[in-house]
Amino acid sequence: MMHEIPLYENERIDDLQFAGLHIIQSSQAFRFSMDSVLLADFVSVMPHSRVCDLGTGTGIIPLLLFGRENTIQCDAVEIQPDAAERAMRSVKLNHAEQQIEIHQGDLKEIKALLPHARYQLVTCNPPYAATGAAIPSPKQAIQGARQEETCTFQDVAAAANWLLPDHGKFCFMLPVCRLSEVITTLKPLRIEIKRIRFVHSVAQKEARLMLVEAMKGVSSGVRVMPPLMIKNDDGTDTEEIKRIYHQI
Amino acid sequence: MMHEIPLYENERIDDLQFAGLHIIQSSQAFRFSMDSVLLADFVSVMPHSRVCDLGTGTGIIPLLLFGRENTIQCDAVEIQPDAAERAMRSVKLNHAEQQIEIHQGDLKEIKALLPHARYQLVTCNPPYAATGAAIPSPKQAIQGARQEETCTFQDVAAAANWLLPDHGKFCFMLPVCRLSEVITTLKPLRIEIKRIRFVHSVAQKEARLMLVEAMKGVSSGVRVMPPLMIKNDDGTDTEEIKRIYHQI
Repeated sequence: MMHEIPLYENERIDDLQFAGLHIIQSSQAFRFSMDSVLLADFVSVMPHSRVCDLGTGTGIIPLLLFGRENTIQCDAVEIQPDAAERAMRSVKLNHAEQQIEIHQGDLKEIKALLPHARYQLVTCNPPYAATGAAIPSPKQAIQGARQEETCTFQDVAAAANWLLPDHGKFCFMLPVCRLSEVITTLKPLRIEIKRIRFVHSVAQKEARLMLVEAMKGVSSGVRVMPPLMIKNDDGTDTEEIKRIYHQI
Repeated sequence: MMHEIPLYENERIDDLQFAGLHIIQSSQAFRFSMDSVLLADFVSVMPHSRVCDLGTGTGIIPLLLFGRENTIQCDAVEIQPDAAERAMRSVKLNHAEQQIEIHQGDLKEIKALLPHARYQLVTCNPPYAATGAAIPSPKQAIQGARQEETCTFQDVAAAANWLLPDHGKFCFMLPVCRLSEVITTLKPLRIEIKRIRFVHSVAQKEARLMLVEAMKGVSSGVRVMPPLMIKNDDGTDTEEIKRIYHQI
């Protein structure tokens, strides 16, 4: 079946080693990192949920959510035409065309792209400018796309606000240093952080990234989940990272 | 020397087992809990710092800071006359009258009590209304004072704002659920959270309390410190709790 999907120069198919999923990546473009895998694990997704992934890149988050719950209806937005076209081929590769639709477009123009207040969940693993803030994936050769911000968190939040009805969820990952900015950006949109999980490389180090679940139209009240540690003291992956990567 | 300090009915002297310090507590009044010990450990205190502790209760935070750095100049405010008088006796008991002064008064009237912009550090372990939000101390028989809010976080923040010059620090402990409210309350005062430490009863549980260091007149940018765990999986105190309690 894979032979029906064309592969272009510098592209390869990676086995996600989960739910039989595969993804097309180009060595010349931004490839997905551990962040997206952590975010896809963090969100809760219900059967038949309408989901929108903003700045989907390779399409990794829609694919991982589809792997967990194959009845979702997911619209995904990607501004870069070649990345969007590649993500479409990955969707076809996984026979997920009925569940995932990739839209090439700018999330700053979300009103022209997708309907208002129709999604239970909006996800985004936005690029972030702070150098060294991302947890580098061992496979991630190209850091370019992550440094180059095509939109601000304010833009992403405004798009989420358009897409979500009251009680809709907005889940994203950002460097910890932006916590205060995130809360003050979301407040005027009536979007409140409900759940945060801080990601520590090891237990004795500061957290660099945070997984955030916010909800629209609810009162404030944050829950801080157990910390997510990437490595044990001896440098091996923690049990939880093994679980997230389906190695146990 | 202790015999010079009177003890009244229902009072006793507890050995803090740190720097030779003792504290007078009454079985009929709110006694200090683990929270205050964690907060006193969390703050950084420099020699000769001017410190103000708001809602000092037994005077535990000034005493522990004095035990760490006996050159501090600490003013402490307590609204309850009997608690303030008892804290004054604890100060005398530890021969700390030159370093710690207890002021009986309402922190909502801070402008009449203490000078403007003269403190490098303001601390507060405020009472919080949310039942069960505090980590109960095994010694803490009376929960009354903690439930009874004599002031709001807004009041405490306004007092800190009066006391601090630019770059002065405001350190406090609150239930995690109030994170969003804390950030939006401090923002208009130009006070930004710089450092947070989340306190988990065990590594696999949500954090209930947070230790916060904020600073006046600086740009936003939060650091999330390694999580503070109270107990190991087997129910024993963690090494860090032993360190904080000077048991190692």
